[in-house]
Amino acid sequence: MTHFEENLKKYAQLVIQVGINIQKGQTLVIHAPITSSRLVRELSKQAYKSGAKNVHVEYSDEDLTLIKYLHSPLEGLKEFPHWKAKGLVELAKNNAAFLYIAASNPTLFQDIDAERLAIAMKTNASGMKELNEYRINSQCSWSIISMPTIEWASQIFPELDAKEGVNKLWDLIFKTTRVTDDNPIQAWQNHIQLLNSKAHHLNERKYKKLHYKSDKTDLTIELPNNHKWLSAQFQNKLHTPFIPNMPTEEVFTVPLKKGVNGVVRSTKPLNYGGTLINNFSLTFREGKVIDCSAETGYETLKKLLETDEGALHLGEIALVPHDSPISNTNVIFFNTLFDENASCHLALGNALPMCIQNGINMSKAELQENGLNDSITHVDFMIGSANLDIDGETSSGKLEPIFRKGNWAF
Amino acid sequence: MTHFEENLKKYAQLVIQVGINIQKGQTLVIHAPITSSRLVRELSKQAYKSGAKNVHVEYSDEDLTLIKYLHSPLEGLKEFPHWKAKGLVELAKNNAAFLYIAASNPTLFQDIDAERLAIAMKTNASGMKELNEYRINSQCSWSIISMPTIEWASQIFPELDAKEGVNKLWDLIFKTTRVTDDNPIQAWQNHIQLLNSKAHHLNERKYKKLHYKSDKTDLTIELPNNHKWLSAQFQNKLHTPFIPNMPTEEVFTVPLKKGVNGVVRSTKPLNYGGTLINNFSLTFREGKVIDCSAETGYETLKKLLETDEGALHLGEIALVPHDSPISNTNVIFFNTLFDENASCHLALGNALPMCIQNGINMSKAELQENGLNDSITHVDFMIGSANLDIDGETSSGKLEPIFRKGNWAF
Repeated sequence: MTHFEENLKKYAQLVIQVGINIQKGQTLVIHAPITSSRLVRELSKQAYKSGAKNVHVEYSDEDLTLIKYLHSPLEGLKEFPHWKAKGLVELAKNNAAFLYIAASNPTLFQDIDAERLAIAMKTNASGMKELNEYRINSQCSWSIISMPTIEWASQIFPELDAKEGVNKLWDLIFKTTRVTDDNPIQAWQNHIQLLNSKAHHLNERKYKKLHYKSDKTDLTIELPNNHKWLSAQFQNKLHTPFIPNMPTEEVFTVPLKKGVNGVVRSTKPLNYGGTLINNFSLTFREGKVIDCSAETGYETLKKLLETDEGALHLGEIALVPHDSPISNTNVIFFNTLFDENASCHLALGNALPMCIQNGINMSKAELQENGLNDSITHVDFMIGSANLDIDGETSSGKLEPIFRKGNWAF
Repeated sequence: MTHFEENLKKYAQLVIQVGINIQKGQTLVIHAPITSSRLVRELSKQAYKSGAKNVHVEYSDEDLTLIKYLHSPLEGLKEFPHWKAKGLVELAKNNAAFLYIAASNPTLFQDIDAERLAIAMKTNASGMKELNEYRINSQCSWSIISMPTIEWASQIFPELDAKEGVNKLWDLIFKTTRVTDDNPIQAWQNHIQLLNSKAHHLNERKYKKLHYKSDKTDLTIELPNNHKWLSAQFQNKLHTPFIPNMPTEEVFTVPLKKGVNGVVRSTKPLNYGGTLINNFSLTFREGKVIDCSAETGYETLKKLLETDEGALHLGEIALVPHDSPISNTNVIFFNTLFDENASCHLALGNALPMCIQNGINMSKAELQENGLNDSITHVDFMIGSANLDIDGETSSGKLEPIFRKGNWAF
């Protein structure tokens, strides 16, 4: 077995045992691009080894999707295999777990006619709505992992040839998912325990407000009374824990829609629909962005903010230590799964219902009453750095340190 | 565009326009191994170019199937995605066309426990029964085509390295499917017209019996009164013609189950479940095999004949000229799609209902009353050669030449 094969096997073991946490007799559904077949086969072996009853793989081929987007009649773009979505929902209701391998060419669809692309996206989103809601509300176990594609690797490492780039990206993925630790499974248990303890502490403190301060950021964010800090260890409806993202470094909650004031400056470039927005700042008053600037990508930032009313407000607050495995690679991944876990971030747009008490059972109106933002978009942007301090303000107005110099202060 | 790419494109055009004969607004379903993605993408492009509304691809991965056969619990082997079969039947009822790319490693499952393999096969067969019946009764358009795999090529050309073997097999597939003809589509129209004219002539003559004679064969086969000779151009329920196999060289019908007498000797090896049966002979009395011999694979031949009662009787008679593109390659393909179209052949086992008048609307009992054989198996074996003569016997007992020295005599 080569060194790479060993790591691939460890990665698969980790994803099956910790990410999906497969249970005896459970069915595993894997959504994967055909280019990931080697990983899929290893995952499948590990799933059976851990007691899975069945592994059902739905392969996709983005080059076929491109051909469809380019050449099918409009009617074809509006067609969705509802029988497939229905079958998958049925599997989810019977406690199947869902694993998604995100590995694509980041710029493949950049030349597709915007209207055709929008129609196709809408068809897919509405076709998969029931399954996605079931999943996002943690009714079933699910996890998103990644692996390199040639095109993605060459976007990160334009100076390397295809094979070197892919190998380097694999090494980074193995490193940031702790596969290269001596005992990856133990490392994850420790890691999750740490994240859980941070979330637990923050939930105990019930802070009213957060104060962000660095050389270029001066921001206060109010939190809903009933907010919950979460780490990325969820539980499905049978109370089986699972990790929805690998890697994950964040502890997160939602802001009060109208409770954000001050200025925040980005610390990493934001890849939005194939365009980079770099060194940008946002000024908030009573929750709303009232001013913005950007060294590059200003027009794209403006468009993002114009998406809808909710795009001018925050929907997520996430705390990630500056000294994390992903951050320490000093690589911009142009991929949210990695970049959002490299740095404290905020998100413009929709707020996650699970971040307030009983939120997943609330109607849209109830969520709004509780101060949660609503939008069709949700875009993370990175604001962490080695000189970021964050304080929590208690109900009595006392300030307590949460982050100092970019890292946890408690 | 390289020479190979040109041929691949011509192959895809031919399959879409002549094999599937896609109609404007029709949906095409492609079942394909992930290793055929390059061909699938070309087929998809050509389908949209020819007016398809949508191309739906179901990718499979036989290495994943192998992992399942090796490692899943018994319960998993008995599980079938009925929602998928149901969705596909629905598509078929809405006039979708079905294209199958047969490209596998011929010996991949040879070490799987026989009982586990049988359970998995039965699960698949019963899960796909409705779709397969719909298809075999030509309610929808369908076609089976092939392309090389490394393992298949190296079985045919063990002396070549993987890449050379695959290239050589591609060349043979392009040649035998007439892709390398000056005008492949015209060549197929001529070819189908010729096969149709042969079938038409045989149907006009309404022969009672066929007499096969060569240096080692002396066989008479009675035909049902209401038999039909068919070529491989079928029509779906909307009367759109399609070609179910590419390549195809045969004109075929069914024998009278109890009307076969004499001795027949094989002229090409038969690959049965991964074992070769070579230089074998079968002796028939009143339709039943009463004796057999084989230079190699005798035990396997015996097992085949013991499958069930119907495995001792014939279920198909096919006429293929010795001087056909496939036969002229002088290659044993170890693959029925090719080998059966290289030589006159017979099949032990089940008889095709469509080969008698109104057969597709008959019950099993009615088919038996009409003299058709019934079996769970259907195994073609090759008996054509350069010295095979076949005569047709008219109702008045007159003999007329059908084949002389292995080729059409009319």
